[in-house]
Parts: sequence; structure tokens; C-alpha cells
Amino acid sequence: MVNSADYQQEREVGVMTGVVVQNVERETADVIDGLAACGVATVHEAQGRTGLLASYMRPIYTGVRAAGSAVTISAPPGDNWMVHVAIEQLRDGDILIIAPTSPCEDGYFGDLLATSAQARGCRGLIIDAGIRDVRDLTKMNFPVWSKAVFAQGTIKASLGSVNVPVVCAGAMINAGDIVVADDDGVCVVPRQSAAAVLKAAQARETNEEAKRARLAAGELGLDMYEMREKLAEMGLKYV
Amino acid sequence: MVNSADYQQEREVGVMTGVVVQNVERETADVIDGLAACGVATVHEAQGRTGLLASYMRPIYTGVRAAGSAVTISAPPGDNWMVHVAIEQLRDGDILIIAPTSPCEDGYFGDLLATSAQARGCRGLIIDAGIRDVRDLTKMNFPVWSKAVFAQGTIKASLGSVNVPVVCAGAMINAGDIVVADDDGVCVVPRQSAAAVLKAAQARETNEEAKRARLAAGELGLDMYEMREKLAEMGLKYV
Amino acid sequence: MVNSADYQQEREVGVMTGVVVQNVERETADVIDGLAACGVATVHEAQGRTGLLASYMRPIYTGVRAAGSAVTISAPPGDNWMVHVAIEQLRDGDILIIAPTSPCEDGYFGDLLATSAQARGCRGLIIDAGIRDVRDLTKMNFPVWSKAVFAQGTIKASLGSVNVPVVCAGAMINAGDIVVADDDGVCVVPRQSAAAVLKAAQARETNEEAKRARLAAGELGLDMYEMREKLAEMGLKYV
Amino acid sequence: MVNSADYQQEREVGVMTGVVVQNVERETADVIDGLAACGVATVHEAQGRTGLLASYMRPIYTGVRAAGSAVTISAPPGDNWMVHVAIEQLRDGDILIIAPTSPCEDGYFGDLLATSAQARGCRGLIIDAGIRDVRDLTKMNFPVWSKAVFAQGTIKASLGSVNVPVVCAGAMINAGDIVVADDDGVCVVPRQSAAAVLKAAQARETNEEAKRARLAAGELGLDMYEMREKLAEMGLKYV
Amino acid sequence: MVNSADYQQEREVGVMTGVVVQNVERETADVIDGLAACGVATVHEAQGRTGLLASYMRPIYTGVRAAGSAVTISAPPGDNWMVHVAIEQLRDGDILIIAPTSPCEDGYFGDLLATSAQARGCRGLIIDAGIRDVRDLTKMNFPVWSKAVFAQGTIKASLGSVNVPVVCAGAMINAGDIVVADDDGVCVVPRQSAAAVLKAAQARETNEEAKRARLAAGELGLDMYEMREKLAEMGLKYV
Amino acid sequence: MVNSADYQQEREVGVMTGVVVQNVERETADVIDGLAACGVATVHEAQGRTGLLASYMRPIYTGVRAAGSAVTISAPPGDNWMVHVAIEQLRDGDILIIAPTSPCEDGYFGDLLATSAQARGCRGLIIDAGIRDVRDLTKMNFPVWSKAVFAQGTIKASLGSVNVPVVCAGAMINAGDIVVADDDGVCVVPRQSAAAVLKAAQARETNEEAKRARLAAGELGLDMYEMREKLAEMGLKYV
Repeated sequence: MVNSADYQQEREVGVMTGVVVQNVERETADVIDGLAACGVATVHEAQGRTGLLASYMRPIYTGVRAAGSAVTISAPPGDNWMVHVAIEQLRDGDILIIAPTSPCEDGYFGDLLATSAQARGCRGLIIDAGIRDVRDLTKMNFPVWSKAVFAQGTIKASLGSVNVPVVCAGAMINAGDIVVADDDGVCVVPRQSAAAVLKAAQARETNEEAKRARLAAGELGLDMYEMREKLAEMGLKYV
Repeated sequence: MVNSADYQQEREVGVMTGVVVQNVERETADVIDGLAACGVATVHEAQGRTGLLASYMRPIYTGVRAAGSAVTISAPPGDNWMVHVAIEQLRDGDILIIAPTSPCEDGYFGDLLATSAQARGCRGLIIDAGIRDVRDLTKMNFPVWSKAVFAQGTIKASLGSVNVPVVCAGAMINAGDIVVADDDGVCVVPRQSAAAVLKAAQARETNEEAKRARLAAGELGLDMYEMREKLAEMGLKYV
Repeated sequence: MVNSADYQQEREVGVMTGVVVQNVERETADVIDGLAACGVATVHEAQGRTGLLASYMRPIYTGVRAAGSAVTISAPPGDNWMVHVAIEQLRDGDILIIAPTSPCEDGYFGDLLATSAQARGCRGLIIDAGIRDVRDLTKMNFPVWSKAVFAQGTIKASLGSVNVPVVCAGAMINAGDIVVADDDGVCVVPRQSAAAVLKAAQARETNEEAKRARLAAGELGLDMYEMREKLAEMGLKYV
Repeated sequence: MVNSADYQQEREVGVMTGVVVQNVERETADVIDGLAACGVATVHEAQGRTGLLASYMRPIYTGVRAAGSAVTISAPPGDNWMVHVAIEQLRDGDILIIAPTSPCEDGYFGDLLATSAQARGCRGLIIDAGIRDVRDLTKMNFPVWSKAVFAQGTIKASLGSVNVPVVCAGAMINAGDIVVADDDGVCVVPRQSAAAVLKAAQARETNEEAKRARLAAGELGLDMYEMREKLAEMGLKYV
Repeated sequence: MVNSADYQQEREVGVMTGVVVQNVERETADVIDGLAACGVATVHEAQGRTGLLASYMRPIYTGVRAAGSAVTISAPPGDNWMVHVAIEQLRDGDILIIAPTSPCEDGYFGDLLATSAQARGCRGLIIDAGIRDVRDLTKMNFPVWSKAVFAQGTIKASLGSVNVPVVCAGAMINAGDIVVADDDGVCVVPRQSAAAVLKAAQARETNEEAKRARLAAGELGLDMYEMREKLAEMGLKYV
Repeated sequence: MVNSADYQQEREVGVMTGVVVQNVERETADVIDGLAACGVATVHEAQGRTGLLASYMRPIYTGVRAAGSAVTISAPPGDNWMVHVAIEQLRDGDILIIAPTSPCEDGYFGDLLATSAQARGCRGLIIDAGIRDVRDLTKMNFPVWSKAVFAQGTIKASLGSVNVPVVCAGAMINAGDIVVADDDGVCVVPRQSAAAVLKAAQARETNEEAKRARLAAGELGLDMYEMREKLAEMGLKYV
């Protein structure tokens, strides 16, 4: 019952459905790997506290720090057809991003798709929906951050798009943006500012190293950050 | 404790915080009002089933069909300072959009701000957070679609931005986009395609009028849409 | 990409998909209307505190007491094709029940389908998903109890079934069961016990009438139900 | 299977279960009614932005501004026995507060209990659980703020306590505290500070009246609150 | 305050409360163990994508693949009396299923009950509510899939039923059905079709083995499933 | 934009904001450690089934049994300034409690603050909001029970209070109360009754040891607790 009149209408109103954008620009591996090493919390701070995906995006297993260039998928709810299309677009060092067009927790992705993605160099999956075959994915060292774990199968009936801009778990992601993910969640860094963000993140890390040593030695943040005067001025009272 | 080093860092990484974009382009009133008359469900269909905000965005009172040009606010959680800044940017026929930078249900907006916004021609508010003074807002005929009703007060301590692109309740909204809202929820139409979407929406309405009459007369969708053969082919069985 | 091997497999394992059960037995109108008059809370109590649907099932407008024979729809997520099939099965006094096979809040149902259903005597809709065109449905006096109001459109790509047993919002419903709905929510009464439940519900009402008068006159439940001794025995202390 | 050894143990560890505190002190009617007239948002601000109950506490019908002295009930989940006990403790101008000891949405309260409570001068109910008979309660003008509407019946098997301190929807409430409720939600005011809070709330109202007039005349909050200089100093940029 | 009139009423309306069904038929161990080996995702697919419990049902520890014959418990909220009754009905290879009659997250089950169940050959617990003693259960290798972990104690005051049909986390389960559970969640297989489902599941596994090898070697799903033509026909465009 | 008039108002209505209570009384280490050894479920039972925090409070890693004296923080949403103030108040054996004044999942706490807290003998953190740096906290053996894991940064702009009574995840906690936390969640024990609760908890443990042995040997709870007669009397039927 796919209605060709509907497709005609979509073209007229300029909607991008059924489109695969190829030849997406990627950042260099050293920037991407540098961001992975810094981790989500530091990267998020380094780019002015922006780019976080919603806190419900949880890893299927812990201990991973991953980063990669985003290959984005805008998929109909409960339909994983576009994942097959997107896998062809993967290059070494990419991360798949799946954003359904309406809320859904069906299991779009399992061990067969992971095998295929991994064979093309994919480093992991970020999905605002469900996944399945958690045990196999864990054995394969294929990390996933998802909204749900749910075995519910999907269909292959409608088109979506690949490498178009998507909103995933509340964050805007463009193809080629760098996605950083670890036990703290997921953060997206626009490709254009990735090198600058990396520099800022590494500066933060250096800075924090010194602070950590002083705090570990028992120095108080109240003193180290010179907060006491400001707090007193605001009216803080000790009783 | 606002850290000037942080602001320096933000500038380097290209983050847009503390920015007010003026002179946003708006669509013409006839297009905006035309979209309001069509309503959310029709507009959503007419632009290829895109643009809906999350279903948790509910009106504080029912029966309104509103549309306006988006004046967007990216606000820190629990901080409504930027609303005052945004109100100065309002023109007749605008709708305010408030998107907090992390999840929040505090009451950013009440009857005083509504009085000020209404005095400048604002048609309503879409907020992915809380509001208060529901009784007064209802009396003033100032419609609001919000995530929560919550009296919790906010502070005025940090900058945000006005008329920058925001993700609000899962949808990307640019300043000047047309936001349509009614009892079914909220839908955003990119300004560039608004005229085409209106045309498509009005065509849908005309088309539906005829269908409605036939269905009211007892004709079945199965026959009207010629579904029987396709269903049988798919294997549907009557027992 | 519908896979015929899948259908073959389903048949072998006895799954009922793609089936429309016709000639469902209904209760008589007087029993159904009697249950509607008693309302959800009384009917729920009268049948031993069973049959309630989840509390997230809310009416789109208040003040209605409805009951009808269930015409059930098991539908794929985001696919409303089977609603057209089910409408042909409706008889005067029926209520439509839509249960998606995985969690979904898409808008399966709007004013066109309501027009068609109402033309066949349908009294309302119970749906564990979303609906749209709330304003029109309200004007039409077509009551709906739903999990969400959401304009998101659905497709017509996969088969489901009509008049098979479904789990809807946590309750088991068979075709022909009586569904009662009002401002308190939704309750299902198995057809086989409907007459007995009606009798028990009416007895409860009579019984409550007398109690209400005594309580309104200031008599305490503690005395009326003779609770004081039992409470003291349990150890209740007044201080 | 109530275990007497358990009760012995409770006494030893000082737990207050099975206790009814009588002779709770109340505020005077003029203070209580004054707070009701100010409404939740103003009262909440007037007492330093404290005392709000969670935003999921919603009224069953809109347009009411209520306040009363709290008669508190700590009730086991799904057990409304203590409500009967509490009703005897009600005086004219009181409001019932029900806090279950573990999360629950069962319907503790319906039209019979409301009849009894209203006969004793009770002004309404605040319950961090479910209620039923919404239609009747609305007709009776008996306002309720609840977490859920759910017809599920409760039992009368275990003791709770009346007029002990409770945490209700995230807020601490003592018997005799003043509870204010309207379309914005629910706020508790400690009895000891109620008169001072009323004075502060009324001062706020007077103050807001003047501001409202200026804003309605088109004056901007930016000017009225002299925010421009501070914003510029913080780094706000107009582009 | 248990009301004997209520019980009389229940009998009249045919409600099954306070019933223990004995002598439930079980599937043979080889079928049950075969299903366990296939896992939830494969079994779910093999029976036509039916039978999944809600995705909020999570294991207390990972890495287990369990299956067993369902011994079902319909329990009042916050009352675990029937668990003791059900344990007597357990046979070697069974799995306990607990479905409360209204939503509840209290801790029905801990290490003492697990010790007793395990002594009778029980392989695990599926509960649409809370459990406690997670550390002990983990040490005992007693797997649990639950809605919540919550220490809240339950009472023993009201009857429920054992081995009656229940709706558990959205799925219909009959006593003797085979319940399969692993890191992906929980799936129920009707006893009558279990052997056929096993055969279909094993066929899927064999089939997937071959696909996995081809995908691992870099072959694309687009080619392996011959999707390119169909996608082009649907209008997919590469840009 | 902090308004000094507001602070004046707060003082008049007696609100405790901007207060640090020093010299809080603590329980002795043997009582605290004794409670930790008993664990949450046993302690909760031993004090009459009170004191549990909401079930959404989950540990960032499993296997810990912690207890400590509460140092409480009432913090504005998204503002962690008071954490620095509270760390100075920590003594060996304390646990930090953070309760935001409105719902928030921002990341108040990470590895730097943990380093500082740990240097002062802090045993862990209970927070009704978000935390970050999960990987580092795990490596440091610094346990956390939180509502969310979320990297979102916080500001330092507004005062809160330290060691005032707070409601944290639904439970009332006073400074110096003993907080017990393990894989089952979190439970608070009032300092005044801690010794008695410990005694009762240890008695429970001894008692359970004997029961566990009998159940492991195959004895049924039905017999051990002599439930059969009572169940029969209630009407339980075996069919």
C-alpha cells in the first residue's frame, strides 16, 4: 500500500527520505582516537557543555572508550532495512548511528548485522531504540549504546535515509561528526570543531591532573578554587 | 564562580553560547495562518511525516490551533534569564520555543512573562520543560504546550542563546521556522518549505473531505482504497 | 522484503497472524448497557477486582460512560492496515480494541477512521498506542481511551489479525468480551460472565446507595463497618 | 499471617506504625484561606522556593484553589484501612494527605470516602497513589490531586498511621502543616511559618501587580529589571 | 476485614482467585533445553515474532540462558503468600512466574525463597515486580529477570492463585508454557507448539551460521539478500 | 541577578538556605559497620520496613556493602557548589548524600570530587541526580548509588545547605543518620535507633540462618511457617 502520490508530495515539499549521501568527509584518525582517549565527560566540557545524548543511552557492557565518524541512519519505526544500506557506506573507524523517526524500542540490530558492520571496520553502534543478541555482541567486542535491549524483530518495508542529519536521543548528529562514547554515555562533536575540541580536552586533562594530586593530598576545593570569600559574600553561614 | 577561562575555551571550539541572533526571516502571515488552519496531523502528513515534537508535549488547555514563527531559546536548566532577552526579539505572530540544555521540568514561564510576550504579539509558547500560573495563562488565552506543569522557580545566572538552532522535544527547530500546535501536539515546518507544505496540506484536506463523505455514508476503506486484493495476496484469511 | 519462508514457518508453529475471525458472539444490548451504567470502578469490584487495563489509558475527553462488544485488532507497530479490515467486522454497539505487537505510540487512528467506524455503529476506541485528530473526534462524540495523543502517521505494509485474543495495556481481551470505559479508565468483562457481573454490580450499587446516605449524614466508616475492635486488636494506638 | 514478633521488634526500634496522633494544632482559617487565594506558585516563591510536591501530582479537574490543614496518612501499598481512621480526625478546613509506604497507584479513594470526608468538612485530597470515581468526585466538588486515576481496589489488612510525618510525592509534610493546591500543583507550608509566608506572598502579589501593568504596556523585562548591563558584562552578543 | 460476601460474589461471577491448579502438563526436557540453547531472539523469531515480555524485564546478572516450564503465580500487590504455595508445585526444570494483579515493585522474593525453590529444582524466576538479596541470588546461581530491584518487604494477607493463566509484563503465560530467558529478555512459548518452535529455531540457527560466515567475509547484506533492485524500485537515491 | 530582597524574605519566613551545620553527631563505627554487614534488605526489615530510598537508585558497580554517617547536601538543580562546602565537613566513615531541590539528572560529581572526598575518609555517595566519570570512580573503589549516569556539567552559582534534613529519593535523611547501601539499593536508619536496629537485624540474620538450612534441605515454607491451615481457612482450593 505504498502510495506513489505520497512520494510525489514529499519531493515537492523537499523532504529528504530515501536518500543515501555518499562521500561524507571524515576527521583524521588521530583526532578521533584522541577524543576517544579523553572520554565523554572531558570532551563534553571541552566543547562548552554541548553535544550529550540523553542519559537513557546505556552501554550493553562497560569499560569501553570508543569514538568514530558518524554514519547516520534515519529509519522508520520497527524497520531496519536502511541498516543494510548504511553498512555499505561504512569505512574503517566509523560508528553507526540509528535514529528512528518515531519512538521505538524494537531490536533493529543483532549479531548478524554486527558481523557485517565489523567486517567493514565499524567500531560500534549508537541507537535510540532496541538491540538484541547482547551476549554475542559482547563476545564480538562490538560495543553498543542503546535505549533498550529488546529482541522484538523488525521489518524491511519502508525507505529511510543514510548520512542525512538526524536527531538521536536529543542530540543533532551530522554524518561525519565524531561520536565519543564510554560508560558515562555518548557525546557528539561536530567535525568542523573536532581538532579544536581535542586540543581543549587535552588541556583540561593536563589541568585536572594537577588538581587531582592536590585534592588527593587533602587540599580542599574550597581553598584550591578560592571559593570561601565568594560563598561568604553570597551569605553562606556556618552554624 | 563563572570561569572566564571556560568562555575563552568555548570561543575557541566555536560553541554558540551567549548569542542573540536578530533579524530572523519570517514567513508571510497567510502561509502561517494557513498552516494553523490545517492543524498538526495534516501538516505532519503533508511534509512527509516529519517534524513532530515528542508526544509528551501537551497543551495546558484544549481547543486551540496555533501557528507562528519560531523565536528559539537555548536555556540552561532551571535558568530563565534568556526568556527576557528573547521577548525583545518577538514580533507579531511569533511563537516562543524554549529548549533547556539538559532535562528539566522547572517552571520557566508564568503569567508575568506571558503578559510581556503577549504585549509584543506572541501567540504562544512551546517549552520542553515546565511552566506555571496555568490558571492565569488560560484566562489570558495564552496557549502553552509543555512537558510539565510545575511551579518550581528558576534563576537568572547563566547565559544561553536566542534564535540559534535548537533540538526541542526531539525535533530540530531553527529560528523563523513555522511551528504549528493544536490538541494533537506540535509540529515544526522549515521556513523554506512552508509554502509548499501549505499547498500540500490544503490538497490533503480537500482530498479527505471527499473521503470523509463516502466513509460517513458507510463505504468501507477496504473498498475505497481497493485493499482487498492486496490483503488476500499477502495471505489474509477470513475464518 | 516480506519473506514467504517466514509465513511458512509461522503456519508450522501455529501462530495466528493474518487471520480475521468472523461471526463473533456478542452479549445482549441490555447487559452491555447495564454495565456501562454501572461504570468501571463498580464493574471492576463486581468481578472480583479483575480486568482493569493499565492506568496510562486515558480518555481524550471526560464525562463518557461507554461499553461495547470488543472487536480486537492485533496490529504491527506503526501499521494501521488491520483497522480497515476490522471496521468491516463492526456491528452496532461494538468497541474497537487495538493492541500493537510491540510498544508504540504512533497515531493509528484519526477522524477518517472514526467516521467510518461510527457509520457502522461503533461506540468508541480503546488503543494501547497513539491517536490523532483529537479535536475532530471530540466534535464527533467518538470517545477514545489511549496511551498517547500523537500525530505520527502509520503505514499499511504488514498483516495483523482481527478478533483474535490480545493483551491490551496489560489485560487479556477476547473478541466479544464487554469493554467498559469511563473517566476512571477501562475494564474488560469476559462475555461468559457478563450477565452475572452485571447482577453483582447492580447489587453493589444498591448497597452503596444506602452507605452513601449514612456517610453523608456524618456516620463514620469506623462505626458503619465495625472496624474499631479489629483495629484495636491489631494494635492501633491513639496518642 | 501477621507476625506478632514483628510488632515487638518494631516497638523496640522505635518505628511509629499503628499510631493515630490526635489533637493536632491547626493554623487559623484566615491564614489558610489567605494562602489559598495566593496560589501555589506565589506561596512557593514566598517561602524561598521550597515545599513543592512532584509535578506528577495532577488535579482531577481544573480551576480550584484549595488550602487546608494536613491530616496525614502513612498507608501500606494497596491498603486503605487507615483512611477510615483518618476521617474521624478530620475537622472543618482540613485536607487529607495519603502517602503509601511503597510506590503504588491503586485506587485508595472514591466517592463513598469522599462523601464521608466532605461530611466532616474536608476540603480535598492529596494522594501519592491512585483514586477512582472521578466523575462523582467532580460532581461533588471534591478536589483531588493524585499520581494516577486507577479503579484498582484496595484491601483493609494492615495498620498504618495517622498524623505522623510523611514524605508525600517528594515533600515532607507534618500534620497541621498547610497544604495549598491549584492547577499548578501542590505546595506545603510548615504551620510555624504560615503567617509569615502569607505576608510575604501577599507582598509578592502586590509587587507583581505593578510589574504586570508595566509589562502589559509593552515595557521590557530587560529594562524593568535593569538586566542589559549585567548581560553585556556576562558576554551576551547581538549578531 | 476480608469480606465473605465478596468471596461469595466472586464465585458467582466465575473469578478464579484462591485456586491452585495441580498436575500441570510439562514439555519434555530435551525440547526445553533445546529452546534454552537457541536463546530468546531466535525463539522469538521462530514463532512468528510473538511471545516477548516487556523490555523492562532485566536479568540481575548477565550471561545466563535459561528455559523451564512455567509455574505461574497471580499475586496481590505487595503480598508474596502465594509464592510459598507455588513452591510446593515446582518440579525439576520449572521456572517461577510472578504477575501482580496491579503494578508493584515491592520485593516479593529473596534468598530464602530462592533457597527453597532451588531445593525443588527451580531454574529461575521471572517477576513483573521487585526482588531483593541480589548478591545472594547471584552467588547461588539463581537467575532472575525482574522489573525492579527493591528491598521493600511484602505481606501475607490475601489469596492469589497458582498455575492459572496470567499476563506477565504484557505477555500471556499459561502454566506449563516454556519460558526462555537470557540477556536479551524473556520470551514465552506455548507448550502446544514448543516442539515445532524448537525445530524452526534450530533451522534458523543453521541458516544464520552460513549467513554469518559470508557477512564476516565482507559480503554485504544488500547483495546476499538481493535488496538492491527492490530498494531502487522503491525510489532509494544515492547522492 | 541574585535578588537580595529574596534573601531577606527567606530569612523572614524561616527558610534554611545557605546554612552549613557543623558538629553533627555520628554513631560509633561498630554500629555503622555492623549495619553494613547486615545489608539493606535485612536492615529495612529490622526497622519495621521503613527507610528505603526509591528503587531507581542504582549502584554504578555491584558487589559493595557500604554504610556511613550521612553528610547531607540540599543543592539547587544543576549546581554542585555545595559539594565543595560539604567535603570540608566529611569525617572518616561518612557517606555523602546529595538531594537536588528540583528533579535533575545532571552530573554533579566525578573523579575530582571523589578524590577529594576519599582523601577525607568518605565511603561513597548517594545522589538523587546524575554522576559521571564512572570508569574512574570504579577504579578508585568509590561506590555511588545514583538516579542517572550523565556527563552533563553543573554550575556554581547559587547557595544550598549542608547537613540540613533532606528528602532524597523519597526518604527523609538527617545529617548523622546511618545510610546503608548495597546491590539491593539504599536504606536510611535514624541515628537514634541505629543500635537497636542493628541488634534486631543481627537477630534476624541468626533466625534466617536456621530457616535457610531447613529450606535448603527441602522443607516447605508452607510447613515451616505453618501456613496450610490459615490458607485453607481463607478458602484456598487445590484443583
